[in-house]
Amino acid sequence: MTRIRVVNPNTTASMTALIGASARAVAGPGVVVEAVTSSMGPASIESHYDEALAVPGLLAAIADGERSGADGYVIACFGDPGLDAARELAAGPVVGIAEAAMHAATMVGRAFSVVTSLSRTTGRAHDLARRYTASGACRGVWACDIPVLELDDPAVLPRVAASARTALDHDGSDVIVLGCAGMAGFCASLSVELGVPVIDGVSAATLLVQSLVTLGLRTSRRDEYAPPLAKPYTGTLEIFGSCNPNGVGPVREA
Amino acid sequence: MTRIRVVNPNTTASMTALIGASARAVAGPGVVVEAVTSSMGPASIESHYDEALAVPGLLAAIADGERSGADGYVIACFGDPGLDAARELAAGPVVGIAEAAMHAATMVGRAFSVVTSLSRTTGRAHDLARRYTASGACRGVWACDIPVLELDDPAVLPRVAASARTALDHDGSDVIVLGCAGMAGFCASLSVELGVPVIDGVSAATLLVQSLVTLGLRTSRRDEYAPPLAKPYTGTLEIFGSCNPNGVGPVREA
Amino acid sequence: MTRIRVVNPNTTASMTALIGASARAVAGPGVVVEAVTSSMGPASIESHYDEALAVPGLLAAIADGERSGADGYVIACFGDPGLDAARELAAGPVVGIAEAAMHAATMVGRAFSVVTSLSRTTGRAHDLARRYTASGACRGVWACDIPVLELDDPAVLPRVAASARTALDHDGSDVIVLGCAGMAGFCASLSVELGVPVIDGVSAATLLVQSLVTLGLRTSRRDEYAPPLAKPYTGTLEIFGSCNPNGVGPVREA
Amino acid sequence: MTRIRVVNPNTTASMTALIGASARAVAGPGVVVEAVTSSMGPASIESHYDEALAVPGLLAAIADGERSGADGYVIACFGDPGLDAARELAAGPVVGIAEAAMHAATMVGRAFSVVTSLSRTTGRAHDLARRYTASGACRGVWACDIPVLELDDPAVLPRVAASARTALDHDGSDVIVLGCAGMAGFCASLSVELGVPVIDGVSAATLLVQSLVTLGLRTSRRDEYAPPLAKPYTGTLEIFGSCNPNGVGPVREA
Amino acid sequence: MTRIRVVNPNTTASMTALIGASARAVAGPGVVVEAVTSSMGPASIESHYDEALAVPGLLAAIADGERSGADGYVIACFGDPGLDAARELAAGPVVGIAEAAMHAATMVGRAFSVVTSLSRTTGRAHDLARRYTASGACRGVWACDIPVLELDDPAVLPRVAASARTALDHDGSDVIVLGCAGMAGFCASLSVELGVPVIDGVSAATLLVQSLVTLGLRTSRRDEYAPPLAKPYTGTLEIFGSCNPNGVGPVREA
Amino acid sequence: MTRIRVVNPNTTASMTALIGASARAVAGPGVVVEAVTSSMGPASIESHYDEALAVPGLLAAIADGERSGADGYVIACFGDPGLDAARELAAGPVVGIAEAAMHAATMVGRAFSVVTSLSRTTGRAHDLARRYTASGACRGVWACDIPVLELDDPAVLPRVAASARTALDHDGSDVIVLGCAGMAGFCASLSVELGVPVIDGVSAATLLVQSLVTLGLRTSRRDEYAPPLAKPYTGTLEIFGSCNPNGVGPVREA
Repeated sequence: MTRIRVVNPNTTASMTALIGASARAVAGPGVVVEAVTSSMGPASIESHYDEALAVPGLLAAIADGERSGADGYVIACFGDPGLDAARELAAGPVVGIAEAAMHAATMVGRAFSVVTSLSRTTGRAHDLARRYTASGACRGVWACDIPVLELDDPAVLPRVAASARTALDHDGSDVIVLGCAGMAGFCASLSVELGVPVIDGVSAATLLVQSLVTLGLRTSRRDEYAPPLAKPYTGTLEIFGSCNPNGVGPVREA
Repeated sequence: MTRIRVVNPNTTASMTALIGASARAVAGPGVVVEAVTSSMGPASIESHYDEALAVPGLLAAIADGERSGADGYVIACFGDPGLDAARELAAGPVVGIAEAAMHAATMVGRAFSVVTSLSRTTGRAHDLARRYTASGACRGVWACDIPVLELDDPAVLPRVAASARTALDHDGSDVIVLGCAGMAGFCASLSVELGVPVIDGVSAATLLVQSLVTLGLRTSRRDEYAPPLAKPYTGTLEIFGSCNPNGVGPVREA
Repeated sequence: MTRIRVVNPNTTASMTALIGASARAVAGPGVVVEAVTSSMGPASIESHYDEALAVPGLLAAIADGERSGADGYVIACFGDPGLDAARELAAGPVVGIAEAAMHAATMVGRAFSVVTSLSRTTGRAHDLARRYTASGACRGVWACDIPVLELDDPAVLPRVAASARTALDHDGSDVIVLGCAGMAGFCASLSVELGVPVIDGVSAATLLVQSLVTLGLRTSRRDEYAPPLAKPYTGTLEIFGSCNPNGVGPVREA
Repeated sequence: MTRIRVVNPNTTASMTALIGASARAVAGPGVVVEAVTSSMGPASIESHYDEALAVPGLLAAIADGERSGADGYVIACFGDPGLDAARELAAGPVVGIAEAAMHAATMVGRAFSVVTSLSRTTGRAHDLARRYTASGACRGVWACDIPVLELDDPAVLPRVAASARTALDHDGSDVIVLGCAGMAGFCASLSVELGVPVIDGVSAATLLVQSLVTLGLRTSRRDEYAPPLAKPYTGTLEIFGSCNPNGVGPVREA
Repeated sequence: MTRIRVVNPNTTASMTALIGASARAVAGPGVVVEAVTSSMGPASIESHYDEALAVPGLLAAIADGERSGADGYVIACFGDPGLDAARELAAGPVVGIAEAAMHAATMVGRAFSVVTSLSRTTGRAHDLARRYTASGACRGVWACDIPVLELDDPAVLPRVAASARTALDHDGSDVIVLGCAGMAGFCASLSVELGVPVIDGVSAATLLVQSLVTLGLRTSRRDEYAPPLAKPYTGTLEIFGSCNPNGVGPVREA
Repeated sequence: MTRIRVVNPNTTASMTALIGASARAVAGPGVVVEAVTSSMGPASIESHYDEALAVPGLLAAIADGERSGADGYVIACFGDPGLDAARELAAGPVVGIAEAAMHAATMVGRAFSVVTSLSRTTGRAHDLARRYTASGACRGVWACDIPVLELDDPAVLPRVAASARTALDHDGSDVIVLGCAGMAGFCASLSVELGVPVIDGVSAATLLVQSLVTLGLRTSRRDEYAPPLAKPYTGTLEIFGSCNPNGVGPVREA
């Protein structure tokens, strides 16, 4: 039996349910998907700041998985937060959903476009495309200007579809990558509507992790991704409340 | 039931047997692997010329698979010959073994090195790395100077291991990609010996195709990879014999 | 006397006549241009599949040229099919028309746009630009949506000109590269009409091959482009008919 | 008066003292340098995991600076942890020391090499070079294999110098970038010894922030770096102890 | 006391006055800014030809600065003419204004657009962006089609603002770089009007040179930027008049 | 009749004789090669400073050629000094010898190495490779540490050959590009000795210009390379003497 831990690095449990369903829908026989919600961090990840504060909770969920014997991990947020750190921590493979979706996209078309939530996250998507894919594979990143936590509302599907259509036409791309775990539910209907492959990273990453486990492949321990060195870590972080109007966030010493 | 056709694009049946075993060893329950040998072309693929002459036979095997209802295809030669053409021909996904191995390598380490057969094939490996991966992912391509058809001999394993060790040290890489389908049998022992992930493209590609089929992803039909246009094709090609000393190959009109 | 063999890798003799005329119009005194039609393959090359099936016939034409003492070769299709394999086979230099046109374009302007036949071929043109030129040299590839075999009709010239004008304006480029051998006849009039250099790859490649021969430069035999190794090649390929509606092509064993 | 807050994102106060001294040594008249130690996180940053756990403490120090009216910030760890998030949080400019050092390096030579602490951090340095500089500017990253907290010992200077000399010779570079805030004290003597510019990021970043403040330049609020959106953040993170032998780190819910 | 020589490489003294004012407005206490006008060359630099003819005068101004003990230099033309040669000549650091502006831009936003004078200079700006910044940092270069010597007229500000606004919208950038020293006076008002950082290279370069001097950093003398070798230089160049209608410029032997 | 003006941009007439002989040896019937020595500038070009001071003399030679009806130009120094400015000035095509050699090299092999004179010029060669060729085409630049004006001595051939051999082995390249016009005489014997194509840019550029003229291709006048604008140019430059020991060059106002 293979146990794949799918971590939702935000703290919204309803989104974890959606993510878990996407993962389970494709996991092979004998694969148990554990979808877990991060126990600390932001309700949604829509900025570098959100991402930074989500990572410790994500790593706690990875560490917990290690203690309970998970075979591999999916980081179920399109920014792939904490991916490198998670690889140092986990014995088994760790795959991000942007990583999985972008790799899959290059295998079913010439060039893809990403359709994501808010425009402020497009920079991160560009960074990830540059990290994962060859130059020219990602032709554009488009925001539909819908906050992450509203993406599970079927009513927004037409707006996502409109963004995807614009992307295909403008970029001359032939594949759509969904740029948010919250869009997983739209994958099948969008694909029918647009007539091109539409890729949900949650299901793609689940199968990639399952495949890596089957292949016996684990993150290389040679140098960079070796376990973190033993050393003192100190302090307690309490995060709570919401950003105040002048942009100063809620982090403070507990 | 999912049927994955794994095509060995050279004409050496013993190599097909090895390839088929690698694929079957990882394929999921309910997946049937059909390993087929190309019915025309070179006995091994070690040059651009060999690759060019292998492609029509490969495409015939793809067309044959379409007629018999294959769900997806693996092109089991590290040069990924005919990949784009095969994508136009096949309804289901098509993945090359270099493509699969390189994608997998980026998910289990910082940077990989390729260990391949003859040095004359390293240029092609560099081209594929540039096509599939981001700049910096592939740190080097090393030839162990063993012809493809001698790679199934366990006696050559130490030489492959030596090349891999040199690659890791010189390149500062942390993952090894096996640059020939004929090396598939060495994967597990090499990984133990070297202490880093060693990736065989045949098994990796089999699971990638299986995953794409499960995800319902097929090659985009939008523009570039649409089925070839109807038009007259004429002529008969007979290939036979071996290259003569002055370098002029055996192609001629039948 | 220098003999340059210009190979039309499709099987349409009227196109060979056009190509031969373009080549002869620029070849120097003492240079004999042999324009030959491939004896097998598709009537036109408009897909990866077409290109793959055109290569064996092209290589047969190269091998034939070697037997008869050709000094160099032009591959007269903008996809430059079989270029690497041809370089292994031929003693003298081999140049593709996309290669020649793109190199020439960079010497007479800041950045070029390609105007080609069908949109499904633009991906290949992008790949070639990435292979031959520095990043930024090619600003765009535009299709005028005219099939290759209709491009010799003067009636389509206004549509080609319109695509070129759009390309110059949109891309901010200052040179046009004609993306199909079949457009060779439009070169002079388009240049006058557009007021920028317009480059036909057939004539450019002919002069590049002539120049390389004069310089005594032949493809390096060091490693990658050495003659193909002696080995068994087997099988007969008969290609005929036209694609059937479900996209499965005409390749089959003879 | 300009107040520049220089944040040491690890929890080792002696290193903060060194960093503060480097910053103050170059700050202009009327510039107050506040060197602060992060109140939570690892004692040193030598892995992606360390970096991830250092970021919340760093952000708390930035938020604290915003409340007290800092005009700009230096992130004084060569991995530039949390740079993007800090830019969202701070009204004034934020500069990382790798960023500053690499930019400066390109202005005083053709190409630089980085000399850093442990080899496991070289991947991060490569990533940052790719982010900040043009292709070819960074010719190599070399580890002297000295842990961060031992770098303030003058006894290790010869080993750092030896790494730098190897880098210059092997890479053909003409500038050395010190790859750790802990090396700041070696800058002057190394430069004399090696005969090339040697760049310490702490002092370089301090002057860059001072310059940006003088120029009236603040991080753009257009889209990506706008203040984080108001939303619930929950949870408490307690980090303590040291990594256990099986690589599972100390993060857990408090 | 630090002496920074700011060289206007064109021969228009009124532009030097503007440049000197920009530099002095930001220079620190104890820094003397010497703004000098080149004694030979074109009245403005708007082509490669202008730039080539401006360089000897610029180098004479650098050599003069060396004799009089300047500590560092700013090349105050956005094409950064003669930058490499000046670095060989000067003992202290030399920074170009495009270089300074582009580096600064990357520290206060995700991606910048350049707004420049005439469209014929945009190619040079692209070249410089490729030299100084990572791929993707510069999203576009836009010309407002105003000659350099008319840019000091406040009446053109609305046209510059309009170009900048178009650039931000079209490119999705969040920082504007002013692409001509003559635009320095517009920096503050444009920034207010556009709501994004607007960067003037003259002031940015002045502070970069000041910073490099404070850091004790000088151009590396290792190999490439070592002083020019002793050798005979001969000839006298008289440049005068204006280009004649057929495009042949005024250079001739005196 | 076609007149190609080959400009030696240094002032050493014996080198012009060598260059002229190389050009004439390959020029076609009906092509007149005018080899001219620049009338002002350095005796040899071995630094950015030398190059900058050579350009005005080069441009004077181009302007003179325009007045006398030259059809095209070769810039016969491997740094391709003044290429862009020359293109603005000349009606016919202008090609640099580095440009020509690098383009030719990519057509006769997988990847080339450059062998040049002094190591301080290797940076410029790298810049040009990045400008003219695709990433990966140039694998290395090697200096044989022989000053330009000593390269015509047959006694240095063994040292050039040794550098070339090292380059081929270390870089895994298969073509050698000679990185100085002064090496033109070694081309044939080196090629025989090394067994790979060796490319002299002077002869390659001559044939490229001849080819462009035959093709009727001239530098695009659209925007960037339009003739320089009419404007005042003032001043006289006298260059003489040799560099003094402190690195300040001979430029001064006449």
